[in-house]
This record gives sequence, structure tokens and C-alpha cells, in this order.
Amino acid sequence: MSEAKAAKRPQYFEDFPVGAVFAFGSVSLSEAEILVFARQFDPQVMHIDPVAAAKGPTQGLIASGWHTGSIAMRLYADHILPENGLPGPGVDELRWHQPVRPGDTLSMRVTVTDARVSRSKPDRGVVNVFSEVLNQRGETVMSMKPINFFRLRPAR
Amino acid sequence: MSEAKAAKRPQYFEDFPVGAVFAFGSVSLSEAEILVFARQFDPQVMHIDPVAAAKGPTQGLIASGWHTGSIAMRLYADHILPENGLPGPGVDELRWHQPVRPGDTLSMRVTVTDARVSRSKPDRGVVNVFSEVLNQRGETVMSMKPINFFRLRPAR
Repeated sequence: MSEAKAAKRPQYFEDFPVGAVFAFGSVSLSEAEILVFARQFDPQVMHIDPVAAAKGPTQGLIASGWHTGSIAMRLYADHILPENGLPGPGVDELRWHQPVRPGDTLSMRVTVTDARVSRSKPDRGVVNVFSEVLNQRGETVMSMKPINFFRLRPAR
Repeated sequence: MSEAKAAKRPQYFEDFPVGAVFAFGSVSLSEAEILVFARQFDPQVMHIDPVAAAKGPTQGLIASGWHTGSIAMRLYADHILPENGLPGPGVDELRWHQPVRPGDTLSMRVTVTDARVSRSKPDRGVVNVFSEVLNQRGETVMSMKPINFFRLRPAR
């Protein structure tokens, strides 16, 4: 498997061969951003109250897992999805391995694990990937297995 | 399985017996909210450009799947998680079945599918659920299988 920082942004099914690895992104997360997201979507003590969180099981404020997932979505959309793409059907094995804390910087590594032309809709392919979100120490903080639909490259 | 709209908010492992069903929530989503979330986290045409989306595969603007997931998280946090709980390890089989569109009203149904005391940490239990997000027509727009950790009820 080669670490292929695509010079050219992938766009079609054919740009995602099995074994391809895409590495990208660098997003830093502030305490204020963690609080804003969590107050709206995940108001648990560990995500909205730095003082109480310091005394709790997370030993400090941590980002909502849905915040980390949404940041991964943004990196994904910015780097490897076509702008005008197809909606994806879902994600398997979403896992939060390590806490994401204020000041952490996140990046992504996406490995293509399976790719096949759709039988029911032959204008598109189904691409399975293993996506990892890494922090500035190279630790995997989140991983997941999204399922993607990409259009086939048009015949010339 | 009984439709148990818990009069009392569940709090401990013992409040989640296998077969219990929790139904709750009513959140309406405006076009503006869909756009705000998507501009930040999922800037694909189908989520940020109503005019172009109308001509695309989604036949109109649809909410980011991570937005729907984050709303589900909020409903979850407001209705069945203890305020000062434990972080969850992840989610299996996250699926987006139907588009969520401006004006839709979402609610949730959560069914306990497995519950067991943790072997490694006997102060807590592991609770598996099947969570469905429904729209105002009763259609399942999203489903997932989150894994939850809950503390055991303290002995009196």
C-alpha cells in the first residue's frame, strides 16, 4: 500500500483502487469550539463543563464523538469527495478510541478496502474504506468504515 | 416489547432491560439550520446549494447525515443518558435510509437489544441498543446500533 497524497483530487470510482491510501487534513480544535458544538448537540458534563469534567471519568473536557465525526466529514468532503457527489448509505464500526481534547490537531488516513461496480446501478461503484482520525501524536482517536458511492468515469 | 415512555428518566444500567423501548423527541429542522451545519461540516452540493441540489440525485436539499446523527445525539442526551455519564465506545451499522429535508420533524425510538455487566469493570454495564430516527410520516430516516456504558445502581 502506497501513501499516495493525491496531487489530483480523486473524483470517480476509478480513482479509488483497493489498497490506495489518502492522507490529509490538519484541523485544530479549541475549547470554545468543543463547547459550542456540545451545547447544541451533546450537552453531557464531559463535553460542556470543563470544571466538572476534570473530576469525572474523562479527567477533563473532551469533544463530543459526533463533533469529531463531523470534523472527519469536513476533511473527507474537502479532500476526497467530488463536490457534486452521491449520498452515502452509511458507516460501519464507528469507534472512539481516545479522547479529543482542546488544542488537539486532527488529520485523516483513508484506506480503500473494497471497490466494486454496483450491480443494480451500473453507472456507479461501491467503495468501502477504513478511515482513521489521528491526533498530533499520531494516535488514532476515531476510526470508522464508511460506505461510499462514486460515479464511474464517463467514457470519452 | 412494551412502549415505555419512561415517566422517570433512566439513569443506571438497571434502567435498560433487554426489550425496553424508549420513544421521545420532536425536533424540526429548517433549511437555514441544514445550511449552517453543512457549510461548517459537510459542504457538498446536496447539503449547501438548494438550487443545484434540486437538479441532482437528491432532488432537493437534504441534511448532512452527520447533522441527523448529531440531532439524534442531542435527543439521546436529553432523554435517556444520565447527565454525568460515561463516554461510549462507538456505534455499529449507522445507516441513512431516507433523506431529511427542510421542515422535517424528527423523533427517536430506542430499543434495548442486549445488556450485561462488564467483566473487566464490574461497576458498569454494557447496553446495546437499536436506535431509529423517524420523520413526521413515521419513516425511518436513520438507524444505528450504539454501544453504551452505564453505571450500576449503587447499593443502598
